Amino acid sequence: MNSPGRQVYRLAEIVQRFGGELLGDADVRIHQVATLEAAGPGEIAFFASNRYRKQLERTQADAIILSAEAAAATERARIVCKDPYAYFARVSALLNPPAQVAAGVHPLAAVDPSARVAPSATIGALAVVSAGAQIAERTQIEAGCSVGENVRIGRDCRLHANVSVYHDCVIGERVILHSGVIIGADGFGIAWDNERWHKIPQIGRVVLGDDVEVGANTTIDRGALDDTVIEEGVKLDNQIQIGHNCKIGAHTAIAGCVGIAGSTHIGRYCRIGGSAMIGGHLRIVDHVWISGATAVAKSILRPGTYTSLFPLSLHRDWLRNAAHIRHLDALVARVRALEARLAELEGKEQ
Amino acid sequence: MNSPGRQVYRLAEIVQRFGGELLGDADVRIHQVATLEAAGPGEIAFFASNRYRKQLERTQADAIILSAEAAAATERARIVCKDPYAYFARVSALLNPPAQVAAGVHPLAAVDPSARVAPSATIGALAVVSAGAQIAERTQIEAGCSVGENVRIGRDCRLHANVSVYHDCVIGERVILHSGVIIGADGFGIAWDNERWHKIPQIGRVVLGDDVEVGANTTIDRGALDDTVIEEGVKLDNQIQIGHNCKIGAHTAIAGCVGIAGSTHIGRYCRIGGSAMIGGHLRIVDHVWISGATAVAKSILRPGTYTSLFPLSLHRDWLRNAAHIRHLDALVARVRALEARLAELEGKEQ
Amino acid sequence: MNSPGRQVYRLAEIVQRFGGELLGDADVRIHQVATLEAAGPGEIAFFASNRYRKQLERTQADAIILSAEAAAATERARIVCKDPYAYFARVSALLNPPAQVAAGVHPLAAVDPSARVAPSATIGALAVVSAGAQIAERTQIEAGCSVGENVRIGRDCRLHANVSVYHDCVIGERVILHSGVIIGADGFGIAWDNERWHKIPQIGRVVLGDDVEVGANTTIDRGALDDTVIEEGVKLDNQIQIGHNCKIGAHTAIAGCVGIAGSTHIGRYCRIGGSAMIGGHLRIVDHVWISGATAVAKSILRPGTYTSLFPLSLHRDWLRNAAHIRHLDALVARVRALEARLAELEGKEQ
Repeated sequence: MNSPGRQVYRLAEIVQRFGGELLGDADVRIHQVATLEAAGPGEIAFFASNRYRKQLERTQADAIILSAEAAAATERARIVCKDPYAYFARVSALLNPPAQVAAGVHPLAAVDPSARVAPSATIGALAVVSAGAQIAERTQIEAGCSVGENVRIGRDCRLHANVSVYHDCVIGERVILHSGVIIGADGFGIAWDNERWHKIPQIGRVVLGDDVEVGANTTIDRGALDDTVIEEGVKLDNQIQIGHNCKIGAHTAIAGCVGIAGSTHIGRYCRIGGSAMIGGHLRIVDHVWISGATAVAKSILRPGTYTSLFPLSLHRDWLRNAAHIRHLDALVARVRALEARLAELEGKEQ
Repeated sequence: MNSPGRQVYRLAEIVQRFGGELLGDADVRIHQVATLEAAGPGEIAFFASNRYRKQLERTQADAIILSAEAAAATERARIVCKDPYAYFARVSALLNPPAQVAAGVHPLAAVDPSARVAPSATIGALAVVSAGAQIAERTQIEAGCSVGENVRIGRDCRLHANVSVYHDCVIGERVILHSGVIIGADGFGIAWDNERWHKIPQIGRVVLGDDVEVGANTTIDRGALDDTVIEEGVKLDNQIQIGHNCKIGAHTAIAGCVGIAGSTHIGRYCRIGGSAMIGGHLRIVDHVWISGATAVAKSILRPGTYTSLFPLSLHRDWLRNAAHIRHLDALVARVRALEARLAELEGKEQ
Repeated sequence: MNSPGRQVYRLAEIVQRFGGELLGDADVRIHQVATLEAAGPGEIAFFASNRYRKQLERTQADAIILSAEAAAATERARIVCKDPYAYFARVSALLNPPAQVAAGVHPLAAVDPSARVAPSATIGALAVVSAGAQIAERTQIEAGCSVGENVRIGRDCRLHANVSVYHDCVIGERVILHSGVIIGADGFGIAWDNERWHKIPQIGRVVLGDDVEVGANTTIDRGALDDTVIEEGVKLDNQIQIGHNCKIGAHTAIAGCVGIAGSTHIGRYCRIGGSAMIGGHLRIVDHVWISGATAVAKSILRPGTYTSLFPLSLHRDWLRNAAHIRHLDALVARVRALEARLAELEGKEQ
């Protein structure tokens, strides 16, 4: 099913490049990665959890990446290493290099004469690069993208089709923006005055650090006054909303559908599960993990894993149980009253 | 308010086509559908619930679709049938056929010479069809769409304006993709290694079956290794996120804003309510219904309706009740202690 | 960091324009707004909460907007007024007027000959304006937008890059649509019939009132039969989904990531927090506030603030407490039994 890998490597070459111990035939030739289940000739798979023991037994992969503890679980050619998943990631990157794209500006692109586009950059069909924008070496702007005025995009970036970047935003190096991403739209800044909402100009920018990746249809609003800042190495999945003046610390990873309201600062090395919601003007320190579907309405000042998930049940059971939540306070009072009455009775009893 | 229907049918013709029993004037001429409230001359409405009894009494519709039980509730011309809503759907489809669009490639579209576009297909202004792509008979690619390399799109599809389909994805027949849909962006595949995240190439595809409809701004990620698969007849509303390697079984319907994390398999004939969140690597069997705003963090292996909704209340009541949830375990312990103490007391009493 | 303001005003001129009492040097010249923390020479900040007392003490702003109670808290030039935030909004709007854009149609835009575009309007590169569409005075349609057939857009609107508006929709005056917004995609109208879903044509429109602002990647579906209506002055943040036939009352503000299912009517002057979810066919009266991350599954018929938030805790505490929710009904029964047994015992005791 997969696109064929573009090059072939002997197992010995892979181990020479990435380390690990090679068991079995060093001359096995590998051209692609695959799952244990789907792998066939010329393909390498990884085994990282005993959950997949059955798949390991049945696999037709020509080689396996696994840990020392699992080294004896197969007789196929294998690479033994500390972290099979990370090792696999490197092998996959080796076998699947980014496609080469011809440099240059498509005749149906609209590049303003005052924009500075590196000769090694690629501007796709029907893309727009506005006045004063700068596109650095080897960066690819795909079809239908809109790069606003005075935007600066660093080297080796890739903007997939139909990305929009508003004026004045700054994008680092090796940044990937997937289709539908919106960088630098106005934050939700309104003031109630004289019986109607008045818009507050959003004059900050969005600044994305190096090696940031942003998933499809994710939106990052420009700052109201200061900038919205996404630090280096942050990985954002699809359909995330990041409000104005947020700051996301380096190497934090956020799964899909998360909403982060304005002016919240999230630390470095955090992990936020899918569909979590984080309120505005909060502070979350480094190394905080937040479970999927969790709502955070106050600051988190200590590392740890946090959750706020209503447990799932059959709807008929939910109907019976959930209603009591509206009366928990009364229930606690009843228990307290029982304790008092019982204590009194026990007193008499003695 | 509505676009006028393009053709006029006598009630008798409608019944001849779709069945049902005709009561009243068979010569009433119908050109459009409408609600009971808004309908006027030449329009047909449906009555499917006693909630709308008042609207039925007052309606100015020239004809009504209703069930046998309700047949006596009006004296207007009417069609009696088993399922008025489904019947109405057919009549509406008859009266509102898709607009005819001229075939051909717009002069401001960018179609790669190696792409294969059927002569009966339509490629709109400022759309891009990349190298090796195939667009089958009568399919419409609207303005601003980006169709990636080697994408295959079947017959009679419609991609509304500004849809992005990444390379190698496969789309069946009669598929509708609404504006802003992103098919085949990279899944959220990252591995932690050496103090930073490393991207794992996403080499699978997205495969959409026949008769799938995908709502505006919904995103479906390509597989990491194997494909992400949406089977025939699946209906997806707006702003849904489907992670890499998910599989959605045939004829499942998913409402807006749902997030489904990677590698989860959902069965056939499921219904998932709006804003539900489904974790990764789960299995949900056929015929499962999930309520809106419900979080699913474990597999569901039996059909049924499932819910995890915190009940709504006035904020001041919520403040009083919700805090106790953080101490439920202690409350249960207090009840257990009360039971033990009371049992002891009762023992003495005898 | 910010774009420089385009004009300079003396404090006295600002007070003359917007009212308030001026304390200190009336000749201070202001060219931009800023936060207390970031402000420097020529910049004006506002002070609206004692939370920021420290920042007020240290600020380098040349002028401050504050309330009478806080007037003595600084000796810098200042404007004393009732609502410093609203005042600041006006000053910011004065100092940051919208950029002037040259009128006219870009040579790489595709405007149908039957469309009516005002001479003072701007149609950007690679934008599409379809047959029969009307674009009124001074309205800007930016790069990559798609305006469908017979769409009507009023004066002084701005459609940022890559907005899609489906056929027949109506947009008022001074409306702002941010990038990725989809107006008028089909609602999620399907009927189950003969073992598969059938699509119900969505023949209503979307009608947006004057002064509406819609955030990036927000989607508003067209009505199934009647229209979806967003009244004047409504402010919508990013990634909101509004289902078919919803009605949102004037001056209601909705934060990011909110989902509103079909046919729900929300009143005027409501405020809905981020990531809230509102079910279908509900009615919410005027002046209702809904907390972030709250799910609304029934109508709200009285003004007030409503919440349904599971409280956040450390995951290990959550594990201990949340499980009891599945047995609340049993717990309540145990308390009831204890009360009965204790009453009996107390009876004997007397």
